[in-house]
Amino acid sequence: MLISQSVLRNFTQNIFLSMGCSDEHATLAADVLLQADLRGIDSHGVARLVGYVRLWESKRINTNPNITIAHETPTTATVDGDAGLGLVVAPFAMRLAIQKAEQYGSGWVSVRNSNHFGIAGYHSLLAVEKDMIGFAMTNASPLVAPTYSSERLLGTNPMCYAFPAGKYPPVVVDMATSAAANGKLEIAQRAGKPVPEGWIQDAEGNYTTDPHALKSGGSLLPLGGDKEHGSHKGFGLSATVDILSAVLSGANYGPWVPPFVTFLQPPADPVGLGIGHFVGAMRVDGFRPVDEFKAHLDNWISRFKSAATVDPDQKVIIPGEPELEAEADRTANGIPLVDSVVDDLNGLAVKFSIGPLIP
Amino acid sequence: MLISQSVLRNFTQNIFLSMGCSDEHATLAADVLLQADLRGIDSHGVARLVGYVRLWESKRINTNPNITIAHETPTTATVDGDAGLGLVVAPFAMRLAIQKAEQYGSGWVSVRNSNHFGIAGYHSLLAVEKDMIGFAMTNASPLVAPTYSSERLLGTNPMCYAFPAGKYPPVVVDMATSAAANGKLEIAQRAGKPVPEGWIQDAEGNYTTDPHALKSGGSLLPLGGDKEHGSHKGFGLSATVDILSAVLSGANYGPWVPPFVTFLQPPADPVGLGIGHFVGAMRVDGFRPVDEFKAHLDNWISRFKSAATVDPDQKVIIPGEPELEAEADRTANGIPLVDSVVDDLNGLAVKFSIGPLIP
Repeated sequence: MLISQSVLRNFTQNIFLSMGCSDEHATLAADVLLQADLRGIDSHGVARLVGYVRLWESKRINTNPNITIAHETPTTATVDGDAGLGLVVAPFAMRLAIQKAEQYGSGWVSVRNSNHFGIAGYHSLLAVEKDMIGFAMTNASPLVAPTYSSERLLGTNPMCYAFPAGKYPPVVVDMATSAAANGKLEIAQRAGKPVPEGWIQDAEGNYTTDPHALKSGGSLLPLGGDKEHGSHKGFGLSATVDILSAVLSGANYGPWVPPFVTFLQPPADPVGLGIGHFVGAMRVDGFRPVDEFKAHLDNWISRFKSAATVDPDQKVIIPGEPELEAEADRTANGIPLVDSVVDDLNGLAVKFSIGPLIP
Repeated sequence: MLISQSVLRNFTQNIFLSMGCSDEHATLAADVLLQADLRGIDSHGVARLVGYVRLWESKRINTNPNITIAHETPTTATVDGDAGLGLVVAPFAMRLAIQKAEQYGSGWVSVRNSNHFGIAGYHSLLAVEKDMIGFAMTNASPLVAPTYSSERLLGTNPMCYAFPAGKYPPVVVDMATSAAANGKLEIAQRAGKPVPEGWIQDAEGNYTTDPHALKSGGSLLPLGGDKEHGSHKGFGLSATVDILSAVLSGANYGPWVPPFVTFLQPPADPVGLGIGHFVGAMRVDGFRPVDEFKAHLDNWISRFKSAATVDPDQKVIIPGEPELEAEADRTANGIPLVDSVVDDLNGLAVKFSIGPLIP
């Protein structure tokens, strides 16, 4: 089912308003989710709306948060999200980072007491609009086992770096630090198909291709898959995200990160507040004139786009390109929603006594 | 052959002095190389000394550089290394980043017109000594093909993040963004053994286990190995290093990066100056009190060290631990050098008419 972004945006705003968000927060939160759907990252868009509602019903999300700056220097800060929606808290933190960068060249904000912040790319791109380089990362519910371990101790902990180009669109590296995102596993589960070796292990730590292994105590594997292929690097990147987002801010880290799903209880012995993010902005002209940087980044992009490829029909993909293609297509033609998501959204409409998704 | 660090350090300093380095630069450059040997990263220690000498003989390294700040804001700067040794230029840049962080909370320096900087961990750890978080990355000679490409367009482009802990040693994530480092390939070449699938491809872009494929036009693969296992993520990380280090500073990037080996000529159409680095420092107390951060990072480390493992004899390894174990062992027992490296070093002693490594 294809649905226009304006209809979906309006519906999503109404859900957030029904949860008690202010107009401003409802508009912003809907924008973050819609951006994910437009950019083709379906796992992080309106498909998550029912999850946010459940967290709110469990009193784990505060829809009227008093977001505060707990600590700061001219270019660093820790923000306390007051258990607000990450969709609202992370843009607050990034705007603070951008203000600091405007004044001093760079700004860095670690965030505690937040919740799932949607796609990292949304937040990084706020900096790119100002001719800055944007950084965004977050920790997440523990699903990934470190190299050699059979325990789930880390989230898929994404990191994102975004760079403004000239004639080309921005370069946006936005990636989970696990070998595969959970969304890809769900696709294999629905299709009843095995997943490639190197994505997951079972509860005992044996590599498996059974896409259901995660549900029976297994774990996702870090980027690299196994030690021989560099999984210690994926673990190191994931650890970096966890430390910058949570050890630095005072959020929960590692296995203490509260789960996004409400059928699992948060750990009884938290080591911090909520989940953590880390965002940053650096002015390009803190290093060299913006037009020079953009001209050279364009040259970089041109060279990589025209690289010789193994299959002549498969060009090198510049990070961020597939998302932009999806955005152009979905803006023109609408956003495809699977039946289960439509059912979830219509269920929310009934719950909040608002009009159905499609009248 | 085991050799004590003081003998090796003294010898290395003498080589740098013979190349025309000042006392200060010779001491510093030797310290960076020795740190690699002590920490067990043999590919980046004195084994490289003969390579630096060849670059100096080819007039591609200036041993008496006028390192300058080309551009700056309170928290950002671009440094021009004047074709100096990266071993000297990178610590200059990191000290500048630390100064900025002392004053404003964070400091970020992009570097152009430099050369190979040794191990990234050396530079990051300069920040850790000051209770800061250290960042260091560099681009390097093109050896890695982006996902789908048959061309070598990127270096092994390492990134390093280092964090000060309390009772434990620092957490140091220091990793090439390729699936395997070139040094591991050389070990397989010497042993005449195949390498795992997912490390390299041949000149046509076919995956191969032949460790010699790189010498006949093949490429290293990005972390992840192939698309199905996330090689686009390794490519994205490597691209991030290249852009921050070189597009931002005005160094050469991608296939224009000059090769470390002198039997290959630098590209005739450079897009910048030398190779590029990017370093940064953030004060921990720009976010939360240092003792709180360290207590929580200790807790993080404890939890991961005690994680259940697949093999009870193989514990989870905290990033930076193996290097520290090597350092303790080699400080006590000496640094092992393979015969070819000893021969190279003795050859340098003859060239510069200094005493042999072992009198």
